[in-house]
Amino acid sequence: MIIIMNSETTDEQIAGVVNKLKEFGLESNVSRGIERTVIGAIGDETKADKELLQALSGVEDVIRVMKPYKIVARSYHKEDTVIDIGGVKLGGKQIQVIGGPCSVETQTQMDAAAEGVAAAGCRLMRGGAFKPRTSPYSFQGTGVEGLEMFRKAASKSNLPIVTELMDVRMLDTFLEHDVDVIQIGTRNMQNFDLLKEVGRTHKPVILKRGMSATISEWLMAAEYIAAGGNHNIIFCERGVRSFETYYRNMLDVTAIPVLKKETHLPVIVDPSHAGGKAWMVPALARAAVAAGADGLLVEMHPTPCEAWCDADQALDPQELKVLMGQLGGIAQAIGRSI
Amino acid sequence: MIIIMNSETTDEQIAGVVNKLKEFGLESNVSRGIERTVIGAIGDETKADKELLQALSGVEDVIRVMKPYKIVARSYHKEDTVIDIGGVKLGGKQIQVIGGPCSVETQTQMDAAAEGVAAAGCRLMRGGAFKPRTSPYSFQGTGVEGLEMFRKAASKSNLPIVTELMDVRMLDTFLEHDVDVIQIGTRNMQNFDLLKEVGRTHKPVILKRGMSATISEWLMAAEYIAAGGNHNIIFCERGVRSFETYYRNMLDVTAIPVLKKETHLPVIVDPSHAGGKAWMVPALARAAVAAGADGLLVEMHPTPCEAWCDADQALDPQELKVLMGQLGGIAQAIGRSI
Amino acid sequence: MIIIMNSETTDEQIAGVVNKLKEFGLESNVSRGIERTVIGAIGDETKADKELLQALSGVEDVIRVMKPYKIVARSYHKEDTVIDIGGVKLGGKQIQVIGGPCSVETQTQMDAAAEGVAAAGCRLMRGGAFKPRTSPYSFQGTGVEGLEMFRKAASKSNLPIVTELMDVRMLDTFLEHDVDVIQIGTRNMQNFDLLKEVGRTHKPVILKRGMSATISEWLMAAEYIAAGGNHNIIFCERGVRSFETYYRNMLDVTAIPVLKKETHLPVIVDPSHAGGKAWMVPALARAAVAAGADGLLVEMHPTPCEAWCDADQALDPQELKVLMGQLGGIAQAIGRSI
Amino acid sequence: MIIIMNSETTDEQIAGVVNKLKEFGLESNVSRGIERTVIGAIGDETKADKELLQALSGVEDVIRVMKPYKIVARSYHKEDTVIDIGGVKLGGKQIQVIGGPCSVETQTQMDAAAEGVAAAGCRLMRGGAFKPRTSPYSFQGTGVEGLEMFRKAASKSNLPIVTELMDVRMLDTFLEHDVDVIQIGTRNMQNFDLLKEVGRTHKPVILKRGMSATISEWLMAAEYIAAGGNHNIIFCERGVRSFETYYRNMLDVTAIPVLKKETHLPVIVDPSHAGGKAWMVPALARAAVAAGADGLLVEMHPTPCEAWCDADQALDPQELKVLMGQLGGIAQAIGRSI
Repeated sequence: MIIIMNSETTDEQIAGVVNKLKEFGLESNVSRGIERTVIGAIGDETKADKELLQALSGVEDVIRVMKPYKIVARSYHKEDTVIDIGGVKLGGKQIQVIGGPCSVETQTQMDAAAEGVAAAGCRLMRGGAFKPRTSPYSFQGTGVEGLEMFRKAASKSNLPIVTELMDVRMLDTFLEHDVDVIQIGTRNMQNFDLLKEVGRTHKPVILKRGMSATISEWLMAAEYIAAGGNHNIIFCERGVRSFETYYRNMLDVTAIPVLKKETHLPVIVDPSHAGGKAWMVPALARAAVAAGADGLLVEMHPTPCEAWCDADQALDPQELKVLMGQLGGIAQAIGRSI
Repeated sequence: MIIIMNSETTDEQIAGVVNKLKEFGLESNVSRGIERTVIGAIGDETKADKELLQALSGVEDVIRVMKPYKIVARSYHKEDTVIDIGGVKLGGKQIQVIGGPCSVETQTQMDAAAEGVAAAGCRLMRGGAFKPRTSPYSFQGTGVEGLEMFRKAASKSNLPIVTELMDVRMLDTFLEHDVDVIQIGTRNMQNFDLLKEVGRTHKPVILKRGMSATISEWLMAAEYIAAGGNHNIIFCERGVRSFETYYRNMLDVTAIPVLKKETHLPVIVDPSHAGGKAWMVPALARAAVAAGADGLLVEMHPTPCEAWCDADQALDPQELKVLMGQLGGIAQAIGRSI
Repeated sequence: MIIIMNSETTDEQIAGVVNKLKEFGLESNVSRGIERTVIGAIGDETKADKELLQALSGVEDVIRVMKPYKIVARSYHKEDTVIDIGGVKLGGKQIQVIGGPCSVETQTQMDAAAEGVAAAGCRLMRGGAFKPRTSPYSFQGTGVEGLEMFRKAASKSNLPIVTELMDVRMLDTFLEHDVDVIQIGTRNMQNFDLLKEVGRTHKPVILKRGMSATISEWLMAAEYIAAGGNHNIIFCERGVRSFETYYRNMLDVTAIPVLKKETHLPVIVDPSHAGGKAWMVPALARAAVAAGADGLLVEMHPTPCEAWCDADQALDPQELKVLMGQLGGIAQAIGRSI
Repeated sequence: MIIIMNSETTDEQIAGVVNKLKEFGLESNVSRGIERTVIGAIGDETKADKELLQALSGVEDVIRVMKPYKIVARSYHKEDTVIDIGGVKLGGKQIQVIGGPCSVETQTQMDAAAEGVAAAGCRLMRGGAFKPRTSPYSFQGTGVEGLEMFRKAASKSNLPIVTELMDVRMLDTFLEHDVDVIQIGTRNMQNFDLLKEVGRTHKPVILKRGMSATISEWLMAAEYIAAGGNHNIIFCERGVRSFETYYRNMLDVTAIPVLKKETHLPVIVDPSHAGGKAWMVPALARAAVAAGADGLLVEMHPTPCEAWCDADQALDPQELKVLMGQLGGIAQAIGRSI
């Protein structure tokens, strides 16, 4: 931790900082420059409270030297973590595409969706039973009944399932219905009580990035899950809020190489929610794989024009199949497979 | 609702849209322009699914004509809503400043804080017992014990209390401790299950704006609370995420006149969390009142340099008193009081 | 300047940094912490190239300790700079409201506008002869002829004039027509050649903030003007780009106290271009003055509904007069006048 | 153009809009819905002034139905435009990587750079003689002398050259030195006088996206060039401003498929300025090609650690070679070549 004093700092103010650091159990290295005095804190900086130091007289700025995340950090675990989802490996050489509809509607729809997903060569399936909707008057999901339909459809095609948990009180229901991967949505990325609870299970968790979360905040949200003992965490970039209105969210493709450097955990991308339009999905999906993503979450609906939710962003089964072919070529070009 | 067809649309595609609108119970007004055909949907547009229309062949864009919010809309209730908080009126001519520390620490600290708040002329007190912190390793609040200390200190000074609810499972505890105003924090603005639950109570709710929520999304989040029957909602602007790094968040002062136009509910501002530095608070507080805010949430700590949380953004009791004086002059200049 | 080495740095890498600093004429203070080695550079850090240091082996981050701006910095000149514009003082106790239409249209319109501006109690007038328009097919301004009409109308009402310079080749024409204040628009904030040229004159310059410029970049743009010898610079906050679509730009009210702290130069605000709607202007204008702005740029048109440009954001003469009254009260509440 | 009236509109107000539309030469289609009246304007909407309509009494919103761009629009020219740059085709099946240093330093450096560029298999070279720098005290480029060195070095390796024009007064010098492609930088995207001037030449122009320009504004900036007669325009996405601080700019990969849909002109990407760090460049370059970019601008320096500008973002010649290999594989996977 480095404390930068303002330009007219006094010896008394410097002593005040040094004393406060001592209280935190840290040594000081005082470096008096020509225009500024800089104090380096030596020791475990996690013990020091940045805001308290910033509130001291004469302090201009306080800069952390160490990354605030621990368990999820690449420095904690050098090798890539590979997560096993019912036998399907995510985070290794093979790229996983998780296909399926935005929301669970009917058994027929889910059966058709599962067949389409499997036929396209995907090994995991997604679908929402509980839907976070901007309006309280919109369709809110089929709930527990939806979970049952999903489980049944996916099992027939032998696909592990991914579905979103919004309410901490539903966690037991998710475990009872043997959800394979719990998804935490963008609006709940910093719902810390929810993170703590899924941190107590051992279920793989897909943690979507918050609407305008920095990469650092996102890593810290994952640290909440990891701190509870659950290290099976998958980051999912899904686009962030921006000034551009042509599409829904701005896919932050740079987050992929950054996360691969900062964390050992797998990184996937949701091109469907990023762009918000089906015609943008193939380009974004290809970009994500080319940039190093370990997987994708792709919306596919047996009959997009009849979808109960986000109808305009789902691929149809045939489009998913074509996309899988393109992704295979790109994966190969970078030494991976699909 | 207006459906704009793309430039090479066919009669068949137009008929497809007209039929789909009929399914939703809406009439159509087809207007064939020189370069574009535009279809106006006549009837209750809330019955129509925008995404489904957008997914139809030949459709370029679908534009809603009506505002999606109802109960919270100014058109639903023309007069300003005034909320009664233990006898203190928020939303009327008198501006309310809610003072108090970021977090509840000890009984001594809270007693001193309550005295400072009252001495400055504030009529409501804030304090956090459960703290949403970016890091799982930071101080997470004093919890239920903190609630008790807060309740005790505030009652001595006869101040109704405002505190944040993060976990839906703690709602009963909040009601038991007679929290006067439930605050929903920025990270939970779209925690829909939490919104639904506070919507079932009759407690006044301060709904903070999400980190990068549009005003429309914010109004819709309030609609979740209102739809449950609780119309005692107070909007709180607290700065949004931006590219500027000099301060913590960008205070969106324009949101104040916009909300006053769109909703009948009170609007307050949190200048402390916006700027993130105590020295910025007076200027931002003055700007908020001048722009028409009905109240403020201001952090005040008896001894800021010892605060357990956000030490660098709290005013001390004397600074709060001085600020109250300035705000009084501004309130008067715009025909209000403090 | 502080150089943070990565966690597995070697003695050789540290020596590499120390040597490079020596090349720049800087001494080093090496502080070996438990997890990180930090090197403090002692001496004039403006001599060191941050990017070059960042490219050295083993370097994780390089942090500047000193502010990059000099002449415009508050530390360079402690007192507020007051700029004299034809006898009108900007930057002192008196707040200046610069009124006038978006664009110069006709002599009649400009004469009426000048009368309205003076009648409302404003002492300076604005008007655009050269208009930066998003579309090449929109009205581009009345040009030199417009300048003449503007000069004539303003002189009758004895008002110094403010107008925008877009093309460096027009500077001489501006000087010939005795423009009192040259405005550099948001799209040209980093048009460095234009900044250098106005820096060679002694005309007061209003430097509008770039669409998404950080405060630091903005100060550095002003430094380009100041470095040429022209210290008569006025910063103008006019809203920045954001994700919010309800209004045109997000007025960054926090920039006002920040600039007043960082620079000795005057700071004004353009509430008309920020919100983009006439009904938002009064609230934003009041907020700006309450936050400490030294002046305002307010669009006023004799007959807004007939304006050739931005018709929906101009006040009419009567509305400007009412606003001036409100601003007077707020100015008084903070110890200023209007 | 569609005019949405507010909920309590009167017949008189509707007539006012209809009359104003008539003045613009447009017919009206008035559609009285249950809650709103909507007026459709029929005819050439470019003749109508949106702001003027918005300023009329009773008008809530005005929505354009047609795209404001013409010559650059895909609807104007269905086929992809292929631009010939000294025999090198940009915009066709073959992807072009434009390599070279950030700035021209010495003849030796440029000769080595040109060799490296050619050796890696690139067919075009970049280099900056005039540099837009945030600080007036930073190295500003080698100027005309730099242009000469660049021209000489590139000609030896038979590479057409790309370099940035900042000042309209230097255009003739650029033409004299036979610059093959004129680059308009991000800070000048809306320097309309500069755009108009390059629009009068027939030189290919690379138009970089403004720091926070919307895609629509960017297309309109290109329209300024096109309107002057020069249709040889190449869009270059280079990252936009965002809240994320880990890297310099957020590469907007979604802009690639969007532009390919909206315009017939080529689209390239600058992964070097986007990320701002050499280690991010390969991932971003691969993503851009996978998403459909027609080319790349990649910074390469013979000895990055000694670069005079942006030292930490340049690849070395060997890294560029390796990258070209990877890109070849991806190009092949999507049916293109490199």
